Amino acid sequence: MTTLPARGFPSAEFQSRTRNAQGLMRDAGLSALLLTTEPEIRYYTGYLTRFWESPTRPWFVIVPENGEPIAVIPSIGAYLMGQTWITDIRTWSAPNYKDDGVGLLAETLRELVPINERIGVAYGIESHVRMPMASFESLKTSIGSRDIVSDKAITRRLRLVKSDAEIEKIRMSVSIADRAFNRVPEIAGSGAPLSEVFRKFQALCLDEGADWMPYLAGAADQGGYFDVISPATDEPLTEGDVLMLDAGLVWDGYFCDFDRNFSVGAPSPDVSSAHSRLIAASAAAFEKAQPGNTIRDLFDAMTAALNASDDVGRFGHGLGMQLTEWPSIIADDHTVLEPGMVLTLEPVTALPSGKIMVHEENIVIWETGAEYLTSPQAPEIRVI
Amino acid sequence: MTTLPARGFPSAEFQSRTRNAQGLMRDAGLSALLLTTEPEIRYYTGYLTRFWESPTRPWFVIVPENGEPIAVIPSIGAYLMGQTWITDIRTWSAPNYKDDGVGLLAETLRELVPINERIGVAYGIESHVRMPMASFESLKTSIGSRDIVSDKAITRRLRLVKSDAEIEKIRMSVSIADRAFNRVPEIAGSGAPLSEVFRKFQALCLDEGADWMPYLAGAADQGGYFDVISPATDEPLTEGDVLMLDAGLVWDGYFCDFDRNFSVGAPSPDVSSAHSRLIAASAAAFEKAQPGNTIRDLFDAMTAALNASDDVGRFGHGLGMQLTEWPSIIADDHTVLEPGMVLTLEPVTALPSGKIMVHEENIVIWETGAEYLTSPQAPEIRVI
Repeated sequence: MTTLPARGFPSAEFQSRTRNAQGLMRDAGLSALLLTTEPEIRYYTGYLTRFWESPTRPWFVIVPENGEPIAVIPSIGAYLMGQTWITDIRTWSAPNYKDDGVGLLAETLRELVPINERIGVAYGIESHVRMPMASFESLKTSIGSRDIVSDKAITRRLRLVKSDAEIEKIRMSVSIADRAFNRVPEIAGSGAPLSEVFRKFQALCLDEGADWMPYLAGAADQGGYFDVISPATDEPLTEGDVLMLDAGLVWDGYFCDFDRNFSVGAPSPDVSSAHSRLIAASAAAFEKAQPGNTIRDLFDAMTAALNASDDVGRFGHGLGMQLTEWPSIIADDHTVLEPGMVLTLEPVTALPSGKIMVHEENIVIWETGAEYLTSPQAPEIRVI
Repeated sequence: MTTLPARGFPSAEFQSRTRNAQGLMRDAGLSALLLTTEPEIRYYTGYLTRFWESPTRPWFVIVPENGEPIAVIPSIGAYLMGQTWITDIRTWSAPNYKDDGVGLLAETLRELVPINERIGVAYGIESHVRMPMASFESLKTSIGSRDIVSDKAITRRLRLVKSDAEIEKIRMSVSIADRAFNRVPEIAGSGAPLSEVFRKFQALCLDEGADWMPYLAGAADQGGYFDVISPATDEPLTEGDVLMLDAGLVWDGYFCDFDRNFSVGAPSPDVSSAHSRLIAASAAAFEKAQPGNTIRDLFDAMTAALNASDDVGRFGHGLGMQLTEWPSIIADDHTVLEPGMVLTLEPVTALPSGKIMVHEENIVIWETGAEYLTSPQAPEIRVI
């Protein structure tokens, strides 16, 4: 194995993310950003914990117009937040049934944001505000004449372009899953229950170096599958099945997200043809994945290669701190590609049986064009 | 291994959950519940997928005043939702930048809910509404004179008491983690990096039968630890460390959540004493865990056994479809214990060094008192 990238980021990276946000905030007329979700908070602070799995407590970070972010968090997080570059950490003992942080948050916002000024929160597609609706309404009345408005997708826009250090973490996640996929023949074959394959594949990913495995989906069915988001059944693999495993594992807080298809025994002509069509589609998008082209160009390239009909859903998406990120590779997305964007290319094709197959690669855009982070697959489906 | 419980639930269980909600809705003057989060939607539909890891798409289920729940979901979920008992499934091709489901949702609500009537959404502590704020505001204007108000915690109240089938799934998760904890000596000892212990422990949980492992936290430090929610560092275990692993794994969508402490080499007197104090505290709460007593009684029993000072956070919580659920074992919680409640007992104690130790057991309340789902620990800390 090559040398591991360093964990975490230097404070300079968080300072730069904060300064960049503050520049966009000035343009948008925002005096502060109020962050409530895991990736938003981690992006500016480096606060990395699996404790978000607990829905009990709200967490808040404020990015002010000037200066460093301020954390307003449950006291259980004070120690770990204290290990980050954040120095202004205000805590309450949560859960508190009378006031679960709203008072402290409102007080902090009143201190930081002048009256009649505006505070941005995540507002548009792919976002939500992670706090109780009752608290959100109470907050709005507690901050007087300050308004809570759309954050103009500032954080989302910044996260779209990854730093070199972020890309190295994603590369690491991808390489772990790549090695685990190469070991699938160790754990899957005719007679193995799909649920057992799922369990053992997750163990392979851990063995290859994953910190944890937030996502695994897949399917196995004769000559293709109907669905790509189902949990595993206990059905045993059978000759003629196409086994698909879609892996979203994490290394130091960054995801990979790609799948591999395997034919149990020799593939049918339909399966062979579908697989090579998928590979041709992702390769066509890869060729178009250059700065200056748009997401729409990638979508069109895949649609053309697949002879796809209209309602196909999306053909990939952004990738980074989350399994799926902005943008979506759909016809309506005109985002211009820039160096540092990390994307999944994820064509879907229908088979004559009505079943589908899906293929997925992960790429990064550089000045000179795209680079595969994954080991791009051959047109021939792998056989186990 | 004993026979596995059946996966899923009979439709009758979902019908009964729905009818119970509809009874409470009538009392609360609500014509519909609008559900947006994973556990809410799964509770009424049985829709189980790890695809919620993707934040891209909103998902909606409506529980009407009469009849069965209606799903308003991205088309990618249609197949899997079609495997549940839900028959009215309305889909849109998401993501859609012009209208990401709000139009279809508003249309459905206008059809189901008379004008001037009220629609409940998750509102209070431990909740959030999982949809973009822009969509939520647009929805409110699109449904005319129908009001969106608090759901009066109806779903939370129903989920507080588990069915026998739910309890069997939690018991299964607990037993898997129990066996994995018994195997910790295979993977942890002086010199093993904590990150490697975390990875291998997750693999042990999978090997013992976990479907997946959404949560693992822990710590290892000399004579106690400072924090219980940090990810693992690469620091090797050293003689005198207390290793704590806190496991939240899933079997068929139901969690366990408990920890175990291990002394690397012989424990110091302070560590031994802290551990036996924790066991005494959880045992004291266990004795009080009977129908008719309150959550506050459990908190008081633990506080007394620990000689705890004031600001200790909480000493446990509900457990089920989520790692942590309502209620919280704090002084302000006066929930009356009922048969079918599943709880964690999670006392925390400080050591003279300023470090802490935490212990956690999982219990279920029956008519006759509490039952440990976990194998309750001896006062003596385990030594590796």
